Amino acid sequence: MAPYDTLWVDAHVATMVTGEVPFGAISQGAIASRDGRIAWIGKMADLKSAPERLAERVIDVGGRLITPGLVDPHTHLVFGGDRLADFERRISGDSYVDPGGGGIAYTVARTRACDEDELFAASEPRLRALIRGGATTVEIKSGYGLDVETERRMLRVARRLGVACGITVRTTYLGAHVIPDAYRERRDAYLDLVCDTMIPQLAREGLADAVDVFCDELACTAREAERVLAAARAAGLAVKVHADQLAAVGAAEVAARHGALSADHLERTTDAGVRALARSGTVAVLLPGAFHYLQEKTKPPIAALRAHGVPIALATDCNPGTSPICATTTILNLACVLFGLSPHEALAGVTRHAAKALGLDDRGTLAIGLRCDLAIWNVAAPAELCYWLGTSPCENVVVAGVPLVTPP
Amino acid sequence: MAPYDTLWVDAHVATMVTGEVPFGAISQGAIASRDGRIAWIGKMADLKSAPERLAERVIDVGGRLITPGLVDPHTHLVFGGDRLADFERRISGDSYVDPGGGGIAYTVARTRACDEDELFAASEPRLRALIRGGATTVEIKSGYGLDVETERRMLRVARRLGVACGITVRTTYLGAHVIPDAYRERRDAYLDLVCDTMIPQLAREGLADAVDVFCDELACTAREAERVLAAARAAGLAVKVHADQLAAVGAAEVAARHGALSADHLERTTDAGVRALARSGTVAVLLPGAFHYLQEKTKPPIAALRAHGVPIALATDCNPGTSPICATTTILNLACVLFGLSPHEALAGVTRHAAKALGLDDRGTLAIGLRCDLAIWNVAAPAELCYWLGTSPCENVVVAGVPLVTPP
Repeated sequence: MAPYDTLWVDAHVATMVTGEVPFGAISQGAIASRDGRIAWIGKMADLKSAPERLAERVIDVGGRLITPGLVDPHTHLVFGGDRLADFERRISGDSYVDPGGGGIAYTVARTRACDEDELFAASEPRLRALIRGGATTVEIKSGYGLDVETERRMLRVARRLGVACGITVRTTYLGAHVIPDAYRERRDAYLDLVCDTMIPQLAREGLADAVDVFCDELACTAREAERVLAAARAAGLAVKVHADQLAAVGAAEVAARHGALSADHLERTTDAGVRALARSGTVAVLLPGAFHYLQEKTKPPIAALRAHGVPIALATDCNPGTSPICATTTILNLACVLFGLSPHEALAGVTRHAAKALGLDDRGTLAIGLRCDLAIWNVAAPAELCYWLGTSPCENVVVAGVPLVTPP
Repeated sequence: MAPYDTLWVDAHVATMVTGEVPFGAISQGAIASRDGRIAWIGKMADLKSAPERLAERVIDVGGRLITPGLVDPHTHLVFGGDRLADFERRISGDSYVDPGGGGIAYTVARTRACDEDELFAASEPRLRALIRGGATTVEIKSGYGLDVETERRMLRVARRLGVACGITVRTTYLGAHVIPDAYRERRDAYLDLVCDTMIPQLAREGLADAVDVFCDELACTAREAERVLAAARAAGLAVKVHADQLAAVGAAEVAARHGALSADHLERTTDAGVRALARSGTVAVLLPGAFHYLQEKTKPPIAALRAHGVPIALATDCNPGTSPICATTTILNLACVLFGLSPHEALAGVTRHAAKALGLDDRGTLAIGLRCDLAIWNVAAPAELCYWLGTSPCENVVVAGVPLVTPP
């Protein structure tokens, strides 16, 4: 009986383990899986025996690059309709000033109009595109329902998508995305619904792994966000914050105060906010897709995040209004070109740091004992994943030791 | 005997014929081909008989969008090596100031080191990616040889690529890309070689359909460009100009004066330059990929081009230094988001106006008598081709009536 299930050989491996070598690279490497975990990783020359004696199946990747399966820690990929009208209006010169009014409200209406199967059918191609592009773990938020039934429907669809596509989907309840129009004059009544009814119910039902709140100008105030986060923590759920995208409202500080896994966006976070994130160990999730579509001029405080040692993750933010992107390598390119991240920082942002942003310590790097989630790339160097734009060099992904596409 | 070879039915057709209807759209449309040309196009309801009586083969596209096969009028996709080092240097803060020195010279060295088969093998995946993304006509420039043998090798590879991939490749000689280092002190001697030896030889050999010159700061002066264009016209070749990307050197005016098919880049073209292009009927080819990678701030004069009625085309500019992009829909997105083109303008830019930029009057729109070059898209609306970034909704392309991928 061979000791391993599968052995990948002749690989250029980017383990993303921190250390002396850029990308934690192993040239002429091999990776062995057993029971879905990495059982061995190293140089081919250090294998103890001939590959075919070591594993039930040997896959020669012909010198291709293997990275950890990519982790997308921030998406809104379950939605109905599109936002073409917003897109056309914005490129003709209008700016994005009303996330509570036109834009999100339109998607809420379209999403409420979808039954569960319609919502699943609309969303599945987007998740499959992400997987074809190298992702093996994807976070999906609710937040286009803003009522009990539609929020639950979105989260059920997210759970079903993970099962149907065979990858890990982490679900996040974003009931406090915006205050719905019907509650405009009684914001506290909506927050009562979110905090006193929905969060406890979703926690009981196991539909949400985390709770997120959009703490910004035109969304929830810092005080309102604190209430949502406290309710989430009381229900035993992890928390995340959409923070300071449109204005510096102290959202990063709120996230830090509640021990958030991540604070996301951060375009206008102050130095005090960055220091708070550093102290709390909160991951900064940057979203260069929205920065591109909105043609933002104010970048997130990259230098401060670096200086204070805040881990930087990246996400597609896949959503119909500000980031219709279903490809993680596109985000790598935008992060390098728009934000000046190095290819190494960018790749850490969709692997090691992205896993941390979801509170997952069993993935994000390649090392013995971790999940055998891999992405196999038809490139010579890891930096190429950031260099090309618009085409994906992903050849295959492996989820818990099983290739998505069976190699010939 | 059925009158048509193939009939595509249940299509949402964007003919791109100018008129009242955006995108020249036909809903519930059909297209028939015979001998590689469009033999009929219109509403399904207007077909004279049952589809299966009208054609040897009927393809039901299930409501999908059909556009003209896309035309990419400006690429440098034949090259050796990559420019990862430049990419990393630039995102770390260095600017692109020396097209004649480091960057292009490096690619020249790498390209000269490739024999013809190596160059073909390196370039073929790039052309195939463009085709998978909807392109059926692609221009390819030389210009990374800068000596007689390598320039000829690049053009032979470009011709071979067209044959191997089964699409139209138009070749352009860009010997005057930059003045090679060896000629720095005797620029005229290099121009003698280009104008007196290479252009006549390439014209005789039928290796080049057109001649291009990089007329800009750090490349050729307006006076040098005039000499190249005059030699090209004397040899019976069409001409194009890389114009005013880095500085306003009057390159658009030079292009217009020589009746160029197109003037490309144009970031710094003046109003006088735009008016000259309008008078000469020269197409403006905009290259938003380079604008993105270089993080340019100065946009091409879109408003002036519109005001003076200069046709605007778009191209990938596929090249290793400033636009490693092999996907036309990526360019559609960048043109809309970065330059504010409407989706209709952008799609005209990669169809009707792009064909004009190559001097091809048999394609670029869908009408009876034109080549049956189609792209079939899994989207509901033409504007979606501009809206998504990083994934291609192209399902198939049809070249002269023949689907690239045989439908089931």
